[in-house]
Amino acid sequence: MRKSYISKNVIRRLPRYLRKLDELSAAGVERISSGELGRQLGLTPSKIRQDFSCFGEFGQQGYGYNVVGLRSQIAQILGMDRDYSVVLIGAGRIGQSLIENFNFPRFGFRLLAAFEIRKELVGREIAGLTISDRSIQDAFIKEHHVDIAILSIGKEHAQQVADELIGSGVKAIWNFTDAEIDAGESGVVIENIHFSDSLLALSYYLSEKNA
Amino acid sequence: MRKSYISKNVIRRLPRYLRKLDELSAAGVERISSGELGRQLGLTPSKIRQDFSCFGEFGQQGYGYNVVGLRSQIAQILGMDRDYSVVLIGAGRIGQSLIENFNFPRFGFRLLAAFEIRKELVGREIAGLTISDRSIQDAFIKEHHVDIAILSIGKEHAQQVADELIGSGVKAIWNFTDAEIDAGESGVVIENIHFSDSLLALSYYLSEKNA
Repeated sequence: MRKSYISKNVIRRLPRYLRKLDELSAAGVERISSGELGRQLGLTPSKIRQDFSCFGEFGQQGYGYNVVGLRSQIAQILGMDRDYSVVLIGAGRIGQSLIENFNFPRFGFRLLAAFEIRKELVGREIAGLTISDRSIQDAFIKEHHVDIAILSIGKEHAQQVADELIGSGVKAIWNFTDAEIDAGESGVVIENIHFSDSLLALSYYLSEKNA
Repeated sequence: MRKSYISKNVIRRLPRYLRKLDELSAAGVERISSGELGRQLGLTPSKIRQDFSCFGEFGQQGYGYNVVGLRSQIAQILGMDRDYSVVLIGAGRIGQSLIENFNFPRFGFRLLAAFEIRKELVGREIAGLTISDRSIQDAFIKEHHVDIAILSIGKEHAQQVADELIGSGVKAIWNFTDAEIDAGESGVVIENIHFSDSLLALSYYLSEKNA
């Protein structure tokens, strides 16, 4: 696979392509043109061809893209074949919802454990996963060489717990707290889900329409 | 305020600026240079000056930006002074977490009601809000001219419920389901929180580092 500089915007679009290709595949579609894919995604065909060309050639002029083949190449680019291990820190409502509803295996991830500081939640079983006490978190992460920690705790302790996780050796933090996490010089990847940023973008577009 | 084409990337950065300015303001900082703001946000000073220039002039050469003034102008651009009304559709774990933890008033929104189809959840009170039966949703939205609906239900019914909401007259949908919502020709704004897109971006960056 050709390695070249890939813009943030392209990377952000890849999961959307993947979702659409899964949909098409489930509907029995075998091939799709950049024109039709563009129409379904609200993108121009040339944007789509340009995005895919960053990674080398996926399609054949005039024949369209092979849905399953394209899906598998995008999945590989996204690291879905890396079998990353995940632990969840904080089993409150958001954490529990992720355990129950988020299909980790579908995207190639293994959710190994969930840790919680509130004693009344420790030992509770959700979707087959028993919530563990946070006191064993560090030892567990080290023993299992955990790749990714999901941070779904209160904002106040976010940086402190992130520092602990980095110390334990995680390589990435998926941050659901409203805090900005500073990974310092560690090189740990931080990916944020800031709910407020999304709502404010919505608010902007709504205000633009009614300006 | 100057109206000009504002790129998606700039709009996506504005909430981040807002968050940082709130932090600075809370810490008692009154003025900040684009250099220092850039350092704290991992952006170049010229990027910051460029972003702000889309909306007209916020700063004064050599004096830096007035933190409170800049914050209030960004808030206005983001429509935070519009007093948008919000209802929540689906009071499962994610929905409950939003009711309990998301600070709607802080961003200028009023959460008026939460609707749920599961009878065992109807009538439950969360953070002072009583969950209503979904049967009165349409009448409520019409009566209160609700601006925004949060969609936090199962993926299977997402499009159907979105169609109902559009029919009831909401102007925007904040979509927490993993489904792609099609607003058709309605002009309704759709803003998605796709958890999987975020995790896959993280996975990409992690894989890049360990390529």
